[in-house]
Amino acid sequence: MTHTKKPQLFWLDELSTKEAAQAAKNGTVIIFPLGSVEEHGDHLPLGTDCIQPEYIAAEVAKRTGCLVAPPFRYGICNATRNFPGTLTIQFDTLYRVAHDILSELIRNGFYRIIVMSGHAGNSHMVALRLAAQDIVTKNDELCAGKVRIMVLSDFDFAEELATELAVPDDGHAGTIETSRVMAIKPELVKGKGKAEKRQLPRFEVVAHPERCFPGGVNGDPTVASAEKGKKINEYVIGQVEKLVRQLQMG
Amino acid sequence: MTHTKKPQLFWLDELSTKEAAQAAKNGTVIIFPLGSVEEHGDHLPLGTDCIQPEYIAAEVAKRTGCLVAPPFRYGICNATRNFPGTLTIQFDTLYRVAHDILSELIRNGFYRIIVMSGHAGNSHMVALRLAAQDIVTKNDELCAGKVRIMVLSDFDFAEELATELAVPDDGHAGTIETSRVMAIKPELVKGKGKAEKRQLPRFEVVAHPERCFPGGVNGDPTVASAEKGKKINEYVIGQVEKLVRQLQMG
Amino acid sequence: MTHTKKPQLFWLDELSTKEAAQAAKNGTVIIFPLGSVEEHGDHLPLGTDCIQPEYIAAEVAKRTGCLVAPPFRYGICNATRNFPGTLTIQFDTLYRVAHDILSELIRNGFYRIIVMSGHAGNSHMVALRLAAQDIVTKNDELCAGKVRIMVLSDFDFAEELATELAVPDDGHAGTIETSRVMAIKPELVKGKGKAEKRQLPRFEVVAHPERCFPGGVNGDPTVASAEKGKKINEYVIGQVEKLVRQLQMG
Amino acid sequence: MTHTKKPQLFWLDELSTKEAAQAAKNGTVIIFPLGSVEEHGDHLPLGTDCIQPEYIAAEVAKRTGCLVAPPFRYGICNATRNFPGTLTIQFDTLYRVAHDILSELIRNGFYRIIVMSGHAGNSHMVALRLAAQDIVTKNDELCAGKVRIMVLSDFDFAEELATELAVPDDGHAGTIETSRVMAIKPELVKGKGKAEKRQLPRFEVVAHPERCFPGGVNGDPTVASAEKGKKINEYVIGQVEKLVRQLQMG
Amino acid sequence: MTHTKKPQLFWLDELSTKEAAQAAKNGTVIIFPLGSVEEHGDHLPLGTDCIQPEYIAAEVAKRTGCLVAPPFRYGICNATRNFPGTLTIQFDTLYRVAHDILSELIRNGFYRIIVMSGHAGNSHMVALRLAAQDIVTKNDELCAGKVRIMVLSDFDFAEELATELAVPDDGHAGTIETSRVMAIKPELVKGKGKAEKRQLPRFEVVAHPERCFPGGVNGDPTVASAEKGKKINEYVIGQVEKLVRQLQMG
Amino acid sequence: MTHTKKPQLFWLDELSTKEAAQAAKNGTVIIFPLGSVEEHGDHLPLGTDCIQPEYIAAEVAKRTGCLVAPPFRYGICNATRNFPGTLTIQFDTLYRVAHDILSELIRNGFYRIIVMSGHAGNSHMVALRLAAQDIVTKNDELCAGKVRIMVLSDFDFAEELATELAVPDDGHAGTIETSRVMAIKPELVKGKGKAEKRQLPRFEVVAHPERCFPGGVNGDPTVASAEKGKKINEYVIGQVEKLVRQLQMG
Repeated sequence: MTHTKKPQLFWLDELSTKEAAQAAKNGTVIIFPLGSVEEHGDHLPLGTDCIQPEYIAAEVAKRTGCLVAPPFRYGICNATRNFPGTLTIQFDTLYRVAHDILSELIRNGFYRIIVMSGHAGNSHMVALRLAAQDIVTKNDELCAGKVRIMVLSDFDFAEELATELAVPDDGHAGTIETSRVMAIKPELVKGKGKAEKRQLPRFEVVAHPERCFPGGVNGDPTVASAEKGKKINEYVIGQVEKLVRQLQMG
Repeated sequence: MTHTKKPQLFWLDELSTKEAAQAAKNGTVIIFPLGSVEEHGDHLPLGTDCIQPEYIAAEVAKRTGCLVAPPFRYGICNATRNFPGTLTIQFDTLYRVAHDILSELIRNGFYRIIVMSGHAGNSHMVALRLAAQDIVTKNDELCAGKVRIMVLSDFDFAEELATELAVPDDGHAGTIETSRVMAIKPELVKGKGKAEKRQLPRFEVVAHPERCFPGGVNGDPTVASAEKGKKINEYVIGQVEKLVRQLQMG
Repeated sequence: MTHTKKPQLFWLDELSTKEAAQAAKNGTVIIFPLGSVEEHGDHLPLGTDCIQPEYIAAEVAKRTGCLVAPPFRYGICNATRNFPGTLTIQFDTLYRVAHDILSELIRNGFYRIIVMSGHAGNSHMVALRLAAQDIVTKNDELCAGKVRIMVLSDFDFAEELATELAVPDDGHAGTIETSRVMAIKPELVKGKGKAEKRQLPRFEVVAHPERCFPGGVNGDPTVASAEKGKKINEYVIGQVEKLVRQLQMG
Repeated sequence: MTHTKKPQLFWLDELSTKEAAQAAKNGTVIIFPLGSVEEHGDHLPLGTDCIQPEYIAAEVAKRTGCLVAPPFRYGICNATRNFPGTLTIQFDTLYRVAHDILSELIRNGFYRIIVMSGHAGNSHMVALRLAAQDIVTKNDELCAGKVRIMVLSDFDFAEELATELAVPDDGHAGTIETSRVMAIKPELVKGKGKAEKRQLPRFEVVAHPERCFPGGVNGDPTVASAEKGKKINEYVIGQVEKLVRQLQMG
Repeated sequence: MTHTKKPQLFWLDELSTKEAAQAAKNGTVIIFPLGSVEEHGDHLPLGTDCIQPEYIAAEVAKRTGCLVAPPFRYGICNATRNFPGTLTIQFDTLYRVAHDILSELIRNGFYRIIVMSGHAGNSHMVALRLAAQDIVTKNDELCAGKVRIMVLSDFDFAEELATELAVPDDGHAGTIETSRVMAIKPELVKGKGKAEKRQLPRFEVVAHPERCFPGGVNGDPTVASAEKGKKINEYVIGQVEKLVRQLQMG
Repeated sequence: MTHTKKPQLFWLDELSTKEAAQAAKNGTVIIFPLGSVEEHGDHLPLGTDCIQPEYIAAEVAKRTGCLVAPPFRYGICNATRNFPGTLTIQFDTLYRVAHDILSELIRNGFYRIIVMSGHAGNSHMVALRLAAQDIVTKNDELCAGKVRIMVLSDFDFAEELATELAVPDDGHAGTIETSRVMAIKPELVKGKGKAEKRQLPRFEVVAHPERCFPGGVNGDPTVASAEKGKKINEYVIGQVEKLVRQLQMG
């Protein structure tokens, strides 16, 4: 019996051309996950912002029948760019990657897409939204309403639990991210980390933002736990699942 | 005992910032794998060109101590672009992705890099080589000889066995690729495929190259086997290992 | 007696070349105001986002001796782009304008600059911050610490009074903006306006955001007053004045 | 009685969204004024090329009912670029600003536009004409003849009086410009200036054009007068008025 | 009698506007020749890659009635770029030149075009093919099948004789090229040259490829002869003639 | 005796790499000729603007020992773009071609360059001057005064004889151009042409400039003669010779 293999085929690039054609015809929703290779304290891996959304996307796909496009794991990293291990890309590069992939998905008949990034930096998200908006506007001129694109960070949902978890100002490599990675890939968590409060200047654009948080952390990773992480992840999965179902019906 | 986990840390984004700093200081070689989301007959998955180089890179990393950067799984696909499931990106997009990542690796002190693509289309490879050349030339002006970059397709090595395997004209989704995927991810091979000979016009640039091979195959997948695949993969691993060792010494 | 004219010379382009050279030598701070030509309900003029920061900049200049560069009155307007009268420009265009002007100010020896936009859209602000960051980073490589640039919206300060004014969710063309324009250019306020709550989708990027607030207002302009506006403006002037003094000393 | 305010509403950005919609429906002509921030001798302000066309545009608007879009006060300044106070922008930047604003005016239904620059440098004017031509050609493909755009410098008209004023070779910061500013903003004229003859090489493209006229003047400002300026301005207003009327009828 | 002049009019730019209109109406095939200014050993001129295709194009035109567009004699030269006399252009520049000229030929009604380059570098050929492909794809969307473009190097045909000439690995400035120039422009051949084997690294992208063949030759020019050259040229002419006839009929 | 061949070697691409190295070392001046493929009435060939400067450049080279780079025969043609046979290229394309070639000449040690275009359209000349200026400015930062570039049209000199020839308003395809081609390539002149006065609108940018001179001529070709052409050409040769000598000494 081999039909147990079927549930694994939630990655778009595991399908054959024929299977992809059928999926497009069925109106299948696509999640396109993005992340970054970026310093996340001494305790978390550089790929922290990839691990989270890819896990969420896979779980949502298993529950809803949507597909997950191959992730793009490089992002625009402003505040962390001078820490070792951070690879930051140009605004134009990210815009073009997102624009090309959205265009191509639509050319293939995949009209409903969720762009979900684990990295939530402001420039990064604007590049993604700008690409989506240019695609949506252009398609609206050609054929109104057919194309629907959502752009979000899974962190948008995760931080909704911050108050409940008693970490109201938690951020980069803090309680929430550390907990989530502990729940997904515990073998990649290197020690407990160290609490720190990032205080970037409110308006000044500085050449050395890393001097505002030398440990590379914004929050308290020491109170993180796999249990908390599991709870957060479940919540995020539930919220993203709702978005997928909304697109499946709309 | 947890030291068994150590061998898994060959992915660059599994390291922490400190570990990445140390790796750069050690002169660690980086392999940057690329692929495509592209029709590969009815029997192979769209991600065939990702599966192969990522597997090779991981095996070489285990043997040599080099690191593997997160893959970029989108490529320039000319001949297959009109088959369902193919997502082709612009030349400039690929150039920029490669240029940004190479620049950032070098900014981080990783001076020895192998860019290895599973997809071997001509425009695709030229975009990668052009990015590498611009980086090498610029760095040569600043500091001669420090930066060394190789650009290749793992298929360059794989097809060296074509004669031995009695499939001299084998290509896209043919005996070699099918065998290799059968050896790496057999659960993603959907049936035996069908032999076909692609005959693109030699000089004319056509709007519908897919009409020259309606089955999307160039070669004979029906004579593929996991055994052949294993043999090819071992050979490719050995060849890439040699390149890494050459950079480690140089 | 003509020395009463002197206080008017806070606009950079009112200086002669010699006066500009002297001002640069003196370390004079420059404010570069930006805005947009954009629907602001039926009661406010399209230039609402220009009127506010230009007034603030002029007042701050009178008090601190800083200079104000000629404003750029065109911005990136996403949510309002389909209302009559909105002129929205491309991301690249705004980036280039900001990049060129910052570069040229620095080439002229004006190293301390406040980029202050009346329009506070997210893409708009990212374009400005990105330009500033590229300038700061490049200059840091050449000559660390000499160049200092702040990027803000005067609305960032204005909305700090929202709770005190009992309009916590006030926004586009609402109580705050209407009050401020009533205080600065009452002759351009056309009636009382109509309260409305904008509810853009949280994640979906839509072709017709104007359908989410057909009146083009987010807030309650009917409770606005020139008195409130004066109070807000004074507060904003005070805050921007602090930033200028900070740069004058730093 | 407040109807005396109406005449002031000749600036496009003083209109509300509804008023802008009505103006477009009425076929209202738009003047888009441009200038530069540029050395103009020791006696004239950097914004000399803004002061002139903005004054002309306002006067023409009062007489014809056309509207004036917010000015763009930054230009391409070749010969003066190394004098203090000159801010010169890239060719592409000016092209994009002009292209975006013309496109957006047309998207709003304003099909008749006069682009009028106070700065008349050759590259500067070509950038504006190129943008206009690309817009006109594209619109001609879509809907022949609807869009009409004129591109000019108000100096094109002003220098028609040069012979009559006995200053045949007058140019940058000379008799004509000085007189015009004396008539419009006398409080910004700083002394009488000094006569000078600019002799740029005819063909060689030099790095230091400022060495060809160290005083930054091409002409004789010492014979300027407010009276002459008034006469010139009236003439220019009359000529631009004719262009507007031509577009209003056509 | 002047009709003997007629046969010379195979250059497109020798026609008048009326003659060009007529040629387009007749479905005339256009050959667009390209080359490079590039080191070719001490014995061959920099323009070797121009001389060959321009001669071929002219001969084919005389035999078939096709036209030859003005050549573009600058190319992308990687391996030879550091030798004196090599002028290498950017990838984007070549792409744009080819794209503009193909677009303009098609706008003029010349729908059948052969892009033939004497320089056959990989990046160079990809830039040409990419331009052709973008044109063909776009025109296919508008009007399927009307536009037909071939992209080739005349060297593709020339090297088919390599085995017959007993120079199997002949390349840059070797037997074939030297012979061909001896047959076309013997007065530009400066001595016999020197045999050399170029051994560029297979994968490494190097800053100094010229160190791999200090004489700038890949092959043996010493066995070249005008006779061989004549034979090769005749063969190439025949093959290109076939392509033209194929387009004339198709 | 073969030294009679030497005088022909005024084309840069006729030199070998060694000869080019020597020429650069000698400080040899380079002329880079440009033109256009463009309607020139019914009587002149499309390449009229190439024939003239290439002839001038060759003659000047013979007299002064300067070299001529391969011409670029495609230009920006605004007014004639809708006539059959006109191939007009993008502003950016011409800028990049000029920028690349100037950069490469300088990289090769050719520091004194005359860019001479037969086509004298305004956008066309600005693209050339802009490229030259960017090169000169950049090189001035690196090494002041070494690089010298002149940009001109040979028509700038030719029209200095217009009064003497009694054709004061002569222009495109008129007396001067027709006479010059009659003197250089009489076999390409097709009949006498027809006099016409082009009256483009002074300010309006129109989609159909060809309607302002349906015959495609601005001037009177019927009074042209080879004699006049010879005289004009001699004059232009003399003037360009002076420029070369000026650079040779400077």
